[in-house]
Parts: sequence; structure tokens; C-alpha cells
Amino acid sequence: MAKKSSLSGFPEWLPEQQIIETAILAQLRETFSLYGYCEISSRAVEPIEHLLAKGETSKEIYLLRRLQAEEGERSSREMGLHFDLTVPLARYVVENAGRLDFPFKRFQMQKVWRGERPQEGRFREFMQADIDVVGQETLPFHYEVELPLVMAEALSKLPIGPVRILVNNRKIAQGAYEAAGIEDIAGTLRTIDKLDKIGPDKVRALLIEEIGLAEKQADIALALAEISGDDASVAERVRALGLSSEMLDEGLDELTALLSAAGEVSPGVVVADMRIARGLDYYTGSVYETVLVGHEDLGSICSGGRYDSLASDGKRTYPGVGMSIGVTRLLSRIFAQGTVRASRKVPSAVLVAVVNEDERAASDAVARVLRGRGIACETAPSAAKFGKQIKYADKRGIPYVWFPQSGEVKDIRSGEQVAADPASWVLPDEDARPSVRIEERDE
Amino acid sequence: MAKKSSLSGFPEWLPEQQIIETAILAQLRETFSLYGYCEISSRAVEPIEHLLAKGETSKEIYLLRRLQAEEGERSSREMGLHFDLTVPLARYVVENAGRLDFPFKRFQMQKVWRGERPQEGRFREFMQADIDVVGQETLPFHYEVELPLVMAEALSKLPIGPVRILVNNRKIAQGAYEAAGIEDIAGTLRTIDKLDKIGPDKVRALLIEEIGLAEKQADIALALAEISGDDASVAERVRALGLSSEMLDEGLDELTALLSAAGEVSPGVVVADMRIARGLDYYTGSVYETVLVGHEDLGSICSGGRYDSLASDGKRTYPGVGMSIGVTRLLSRIFAQGTVRASRKVPSAVLVAVVNEDERAASDAVARVLRGRGIACETAPSAAKFGKQIKYADKRGIPYVWFPQSGEVKDIRSGEQVAADPASWVLPDEDARPSVRIEERDE
Repeated sequence: MAKKSSLSGFPEWLPEQQIIETAILAQLRETFSLYGYCEISSRAVEPIEHLLAKGETSKEIYLLRRLQAEEGERSSREMGLHFDLTVPLARYVVENAGRLDFPFKRFQMQKVWRGERPQEGRFREFMQADIDVVGQETLPFHYEVELPLVMAEALSKLPIGPVRILVNNRKIAQGAYEAAGIEDIAGTLRTIDKLDKIGPDKVRALLIEEIGLAEKQADIALALAEISGDDASVAERVRALGLSSEMLDEGLDELTALLSAAGEVSPGVVVADMRIARGLDYYTGSVYETVLVGHEDLGSICSGGRYDSLASDGKRTYPGVGMSIGVTRLLSRIFAQGTVRASRKVPSAVLVAVVNEDERAASDAVARVLRGRGIACETAPSAAKFGKQIKYADKRGIPYVWFPQSGEVKDIRSGEQVAADPASWVLPDEDARPSVRIEERDE
Repeated sequence: MAKKSSLSGFPEWLPEQQIIETAILAQLRETFSLYGYCEISSRAVEPIEHLLAKGETSKEIYLLRRLQAEEGERSSREMGLHFDLTVPLARYVVENAGRLDFPFKRFQMQKVWRGERPQEGRFREFMQADIDVVGQETLPFHYEVELPLVMAEALSKLPIGPVRILVNNRKIAQGAYEAAGIEDIAGTLRTIDKLDKIGPDKVRALLIEEIGLAEKQADIALALAEISGDDASVAERVRALGLSSEMLDEGLDELTALLSAAGEVSPGVVVADMRIARGLDYYTGSVYETVLVGHEDLGSICSGGRYDSLASDGKRTYPGVGMSIGVTRLLSRIFAQGTVRASRKVPSAVLVAVVNEDERAASDAVARVLRGRGIACETAPSAAKFGKQIKYADKRGIPYVWFPQSGEVKDIRSGEQVAADPASWVLPDEDARPSVRIEERDE
């Protein structure tokens, strides 16, 4: 079902796939709205100095220039395409601070661009769906609990199967490392992040040789990273390492509060994992990663965390907490698997047949009455033989064909044909619009 | 209400404006779906040779380059941002011809970019909403009738006031000019297009001096351009010019068929206007422009026409007919006027108050029950005094505040407070989601 893109890294969908993306985005909008998040849409373009402020992705930026730019324009502001929705949010919040209400809960579903080498699950143009809560000066911790719960609910309503949201807290690692006398916190986190790739022995060696940890410090960092679970016992096991610091306690309290709330609402979905270190060097509190169960190789499909300073205008800081769904990454896996299908390729529930071109107006009139009642339909492109018109409907998955002359409508799936009046005929709810469903795989 | 953009030509909306854009796009999607058009979304980027094929806009193209492109990359394909949705459609159709069903009816709502000088109603980044029908080798004329009727219905459902769709047909001008012995058809059309700007006397002079028409030919071209109307009398008045050609007859028959169908469905909306010449040099049949009544200065908000060859893959040609709404242009006028308002700034219908932070879980539980019933709500950000919590709701336009301890809900507009159970409380339909309405202006 998936089609090859003609430009590597710039995926496009067929109409029957677009139905699935549109349904997923509509479902996400619905869930985010249920929680009171409002939508914004930012321009695709930012001045380069904003884009470069977040250093790690700088070499992935696409810059713009006008094809026939005049000489004088070269000195004007250089602009590039946004590579995420967080940098535009930070700029938008500072720019509109006086017109926004804080805490500002917003969602945003847009394409972003990265000039990186395309590979499976990595694209140069892709759709992200972000939620963030941004405060002015302060932002209560409870939003760090809310965010993964919103995402757990949003993802659970998509036709993608179960997810697991892995959480950690910067304060735990930092508190524990400091209590153990480790000075290079960021370096230790970066090394711990390699656990999945190179294993504990090599990580231990790197911690000692490159980061300069004592053997006992390396052992503590590794022991901490091994702890995971979905209840209060996680905090107990961390405390059993025998380290003590105020920051560590605060981190453990926050993590326990998050696990406890999540355990009540979505048991088993949110799991603490001290091995999650990616992003811990720039987030300041909770961090989140999300795996699609059975598709862990895809990497995280929804990540984020808490920033104490998402943005600042020099006078005020704007702390934030956010999570971002990689919609295109998710879709590319769904399409490759072919397990999610749209029930038809077009919105039309009915094809109104045309007997001959002189009587097309009669068919158009039937279609108009049906549309007036909210029934999506189209008139046949030509007055071909009925067999050919039925084939037109069948190819697209249109379930009903209407014959205006006989005043009958045929369900072309069952073959059943009945007399019907366009002003009163009842279209079954399940046929109203294309539906999206998961097909069971033979295993 | 409109806010100044920090980057000229790249408009952004406040959340309460975004509600209006989102509602308008949802309404357009609904109407296009009712007519059986399926959605596609194309990548934002095209190889430069595709973009340059449509010459007139070439200097408005934004090209991309990677910030840290390696030397070897310079020789690779140059890419730019699409400046409309027609060029991507043509490429998409050729690329996917084997996987699409023809005639292919599609809609597409995406941003496009043009590096032109920003001015009122003209932007560098803006949203377009296009519908097109594309055939393989052939495309019946009746789609040229359908397109403006779909747009008339789509636009009539938006909170923008009445529109007038002006139509003309390339075959009429070409047939009439040829019958009058005029050789430079394109030059004559380009000059006639200046009528609104410079008036008939100057156009007449230009036709004679620059295009080389005889006086009588110039008079005929001007007389033709003066004809307009919404019924069959238009064709009679054109015929009264005394010109005769097969192409002219075909054009008049098509125009009359379009006016007749439109007059039945949307009386007064579709008007023939022989002065409409823009685009007649590249369209091959019907052409359309749309003005917002009372805002004619805004220019056309929805234009398009028939192409005999939208695309070709060397073996086959793909004729098409399409129309494109300038959504951002429309919104910028709506926002400048301030006549269309969202009923509130956020999706939440209910704010659940919090008595103290230790009892936040009780408030979250109420919110959870409400959300389970489809009621959008949020929990108060802090356990401030109730007066402050009510103010939080009021600033955002959230109509109800729920007090979990007393088990009561207050309509903060009327002040009415009643006992209520979150499992059964009925939220009035009109409060379910933010609604968009036109406010009457004092005149």
C-alpha cells in the first residue's frame, strides 16, 4: 500500500492513506481540545538566529533564498524553515505575551523540515503534533503529570496499538550524581544514554576513562540506570542506593506523584525508566519518551519534557513542559505494515448514475437532495453502461449506486436494490464517511 | 483583534483567530467531501525545474539550501518551496497515475510560499484551499459547471458574507477575436485585462498602437468586454456583435449551460463577465474569479479555470479544471474588520476549580468524568481564591466553573449556580465547543 516517494525523505500519501492521516489528526485535535488546549499555527519560517539558538540541530536547517533575489537583499535577515515546533512556540509566546493568557495550553500540528540524511523513520519533511503548557515566571508541577496523561489518552484512541510512555526526571540523575560526587553531570548522562547501543561494560569503561569517574561512581550511575517500574517501589530502589540530596528527594517525589496519578488513570502505560537520559542535559524536570509496543525499533514516537526556561524576553522567563508526536514516523510504520485501512478511497457514500447526458440534470438533482441531507455523493462522470458506472463506484469503494430513472438504490456490496426517495432514504451511519480500522494480521 | 506579524508577509494568528481559521478549513473540508472530492497533501518542496515550468511566478520562488551543505551537494537537484497547489498536483498525478482513479477529484488545503513584496492581501506564506478534477486524456465539460457550484456552496457556508463568481470562457474571446480577424489573441487579452485599471479609452489606444488592431477590431474587443449578465441573454448579446465561428458558438453554449445550471442552484451568484481576461491566456475553457461582495478591492478570493493539459507524462495528457481559495487573504480581511468572532478563546467549556492542592485529585476526577462524556474541560492551574479561579475562566470565555466540594456548577455569564453530578450534568449544545459567528456592524 505504501508508495515510494519520488524525492527521498519527503513522503507523500495516496488518497486512501491521507484519509488515515486526516482521521488521526482529527482524533488528536479532539483529545487535545477535551483537555482545554487551544490550537495555534506558526509560520514555517524563522530568522536564522532563532533556529541556531538550539545548537544541536543547526546543521539540519534548510535556509531560504529568493530565486531572483536582488543584490540589496543579501544583507537582509536570513531565514530558514523550522525544524521543530518548540522554537516557533518560544518565539510566539514572547512576541504575543501581552495577548496570551497564562498558563498557556496549546497544541500545534504542522510539518517541520530537517536537512538530515533520510533513513527508515527519519524524514526531511514530516508532521509533528505537539502539546505544551507554558507559564509566565512559574509553572506548577502538576502539568508535568498532565502532559503524559493527555498523550496516553490521545495515543490510545489512535488505530496504532498500545504504547508505553517511559519517564525519568532530571532531578533524580542530577541529585544522585551530585550526592555521589560526580562532577560532569552532562557527560555522564550522555554516556549512560549509550547503554542500549553498547551495553553496560563499555559504558562503564567510558565513564571511567572519558568522563573520569571513580569505579564506585560509575557503578552507582549504572545501578541507577537499571532501575525501572511503574509504581512507588522505583523510588524505594533508588533510595536503596544510599545516596542523599534534596534534589534527589524532590525528583523522586515528583516521579512518584506522576506514577501514582498515571497508575490510576492508565494502568501500565506510564513506566519510570532511569535509563532514559536523552534530553536530560537540557530538560530540567520530567522527561518523556514513548514506544509503540512491538515496534520498539522505531524509536520514540512521542518525546518531551520540562524546561525551566522555554523562552525569555530579558525581563520574564517562560517555563514550559511539552511533548511532541512524530506523526509521519508513526504513519510510515502503519503504512508499511498495511494493518490500518480506510473503508474506501473517496468520501462519497453514493454514486448517482447517469442514463444519458441529456438527463444529467435529473441525476444532479438527486445528488443535491442527498447532499442537503449531509450525504456525500457524486454524479457519474459519463453516461456509460450501468455496469461501467457500478465498476466506477466499486473501484473507489463507494457502497451505493443510485438509479434516478427507476428511483432505486443498490448496495453494490450485497447486491440488494430497493426503491428509495432521496429526500428520505436512510444511509447507515457506518457508511456515512470512510472509516479507519485495524485489520487483524495472520500470525 | 488582528496582530502585527513580526516578519512582514508571514502572518500568524492569535488562538481566538486560529479557532476561526480551523472552523473555516473544517467547513471547506466538509463541503468538498459532500461532493466526493478526496484530500491529498503534497510535500512543500519541488525540484526547481517543475517550479520554473510555470514561468510567470519564477522570480517569486524560495529556494532551499542546507545550512551546512557539503561541497558535493551543490551539484544535486535544486529544490524550492511550492508557490501554488497546482504545480504539485500536476506532478503528483503523473507520478501516481497508475494508483489513482480517473477522473480524479481532489481537494488540498496547504500553505504556499511566494517571495514577493508583501502588501495588503498579499503574503509570502499563505493558506490555499484548492479543488480540481483531473481526467486521463479526456475530461467532460460538466466538471466546468460543477466546480463553481461546489465553490459557491463552500463559500456560502463560511461566515464571510455573499460572494459573486465571475465566469468567462476562453473559447468566446478566442472565437470572437479570430472571427474579427485579430491575430494577437494573447496580446489582446492582456490589454483587455487592463480595463479596470486604465479605462476603455486607454485600452483602445493600446490595442491599436501596441497590438496593431484596426479601429473596428479594437471596438469589437471592447464591446465584447462590456457584456455581462447571469442568464442566456449574455450569449444573445455576444451573437449580436455579428461575429461567427465554431469556437465562439462552442464557448457560448458552454457558458450558457454553466449559467443555466448555476441559476437553478445558486441564483445570482454566478455571473458571466466578458471583461474577465486574466488567465485566459493559459486556461483553455471556463475561467473563474470570485469577489467578496462589498470587498471588491480585495481582488479575487477564489480563481481558476480549465486546462486542456494540466500535466503530461509524454505518453498521456491530463486535462483538469480547478479553483483555488485564498484562505489567508480572506482571513486577513475578516480579522481586520473584526466582524467574525469566536465565542471563546479556548476549547474548554468547564473549568474545574481546585480548593487546595491536596485535593487536586478530586478536581481531576471530576474533569475525567466530564471528558469521558465528551465535555472539554480543564482543572484550575492553582488553588487560588475562587474569585481568582472564576477570573481565569472569564478571561478565556470558559462559560462554566465546577466546584467539586459543594458538587455545584456555576454559569459565570448568568451567575446561576446549581447542584450537578459530572456523570449526568447536561452541557447545552451551543456551549459544547467555541462557535464562530458574524457580529453585526453598526452602520
